[in-house]
Amino acid sequence: MEIHTAIIEVDQTIGPDISDITSMVNSIVAKSGIYEGVALLNIIGSTGSITTIEFEPGVVEDLKDAIERLAPKDLVYKHELAWHDGNGHSHVQAALIGPSLNITIINGRLQLGTWQQIVVINHDNKPRRRKISCTIIGK
Amino acid sequence: MEIHTAIIEVDQTIGPDISDITSMVNSIVAKSGIYEGVALLNIIGSTGSITTIEFEPGVVEDLKDAIERLAPKDLVYKHELAWHDGNGHSHVQAALIGPSLNITIINGRLQLGTWQQIVVINHDNKPRRRKISCTIIGK
Amino acid sequence: MEIHTAIIEVDQTIGPDISDITSMVNSIVAKSGIYEGVALLNIIGSTGSITTIEFEPGVVEDLKDAIERLAPKDLVYKHELAWHDGNGHSHVQAALIGPSLNITIINGRLQLGTWQQIVVINHDNKPRRRKISCTIIGK
Repeated sequence: MEIHTAIIEVDQTIGPDISDITSMVNSIVAKSGIYEGVALLNIIGSTGSITTIEFEPGVVEDLKDAIERLAPKDLVYKHELAWHDGNGHSHVQAALIGPSLNITIINGRLQLGTWQQIVVINHDNKPRRRKISCTIIGK
Repeated sequence: MEIHTAIIEVDQTIGPDISDITSMVNSIVAKSGIYEGVALLNIIGSTGSITTIEFEPGVVEDLKDAIERLAPKDLVYKHELAWHDGNGHSHVQAALIGPSLNITIINGRLQLGTWQQIVVINHDNKPRRRKISCTIIGK
Repeated sequence: MEIHTAIIEVDQTIGPDISDITSMVNSIVAKSGIYEGVALLNIIGSTGSITTIEFEPGVVEDLKDAIERLAPKDLVYKHELAWHDGNGHSHVQAALIGPSLNITIINGRLQLGTWQQIVVINHDNKPRRRKISCTIIGK
């Protein structure tokens, strides 16, 4: 059994910005040579999150709208009263969606649906180069 | 140390439908012979999600109501404007709840509470045979 | 490759109560001697959840407000009609946020941002000693 780790980096615009990282994760899995196991991902930073969606423009916009409903930009946030950096909503949105996920690998392939992509979300109120750490375990 | 993978299948009705898969995961853990380790699960497909709840009829209905509040069926979804398949809300709900989880195994038992079950949610607007991939790692 | 498991315990007040367990997880990682791998956590019990946030008092309050919006205490919950234990909202909140996460370990360090802490949330309507199970896998 083997273990491999890697860091994925992706440039994102002002949040909510949603980026498809599936091909990058597929590359890490292929390079690892792991045939049966699991890929574990987590975003580094408290204003980002990670999940899966069908990455087509309509769903991406619909998810942005739902994220805005979860923690609207225009509420009063106590984080902002203390820090004045304007990203109280970003912290809340990211915490609710969550920082990590895991996908099983069988026959060298991530067990995702045909229309299911791994996406990273930048919730911050400024562009960010987001880092996602990745562990591949298996044989 | 060993690794085992398996696929669980469960038939679900129109979403949100919530199914308890704990006994199926317990069977895979038992069959693996893993005594100390972790079980990792992810749903295959972008209109399903996975979490834990107390699987009693009241909570199940309460969770369905909350899922409906997160992304109500009767909003206008951009996904539907392009694809007309009526499941824009399904994609959004699934992405917010998330596709995966992990549960530690100690003494051959999943570390869940007495009233805590692993559930799969079909958010799609039609019945689906849902597949969940499972990895067991440990010794 | 090695695997270690442990249980973290934390006393929490009436929910939503949010506790930083990062230093406890760091101690388990250090004690394991794992240099490259992954830490996997899950809360034991159906009225708790786990995520990451910047653990400063403002964000903590903002997250509590958002959790209350997800499943307000004063709605009518079907769980309560049957069980009368007053924690219908607790179950729903916990299921939506989710019970588990995973963080990669590189160079013996959890891959978290500088302002990103691992937090456990008690959603229950009474104080709870919360248990979180932890698996460390790696080399």
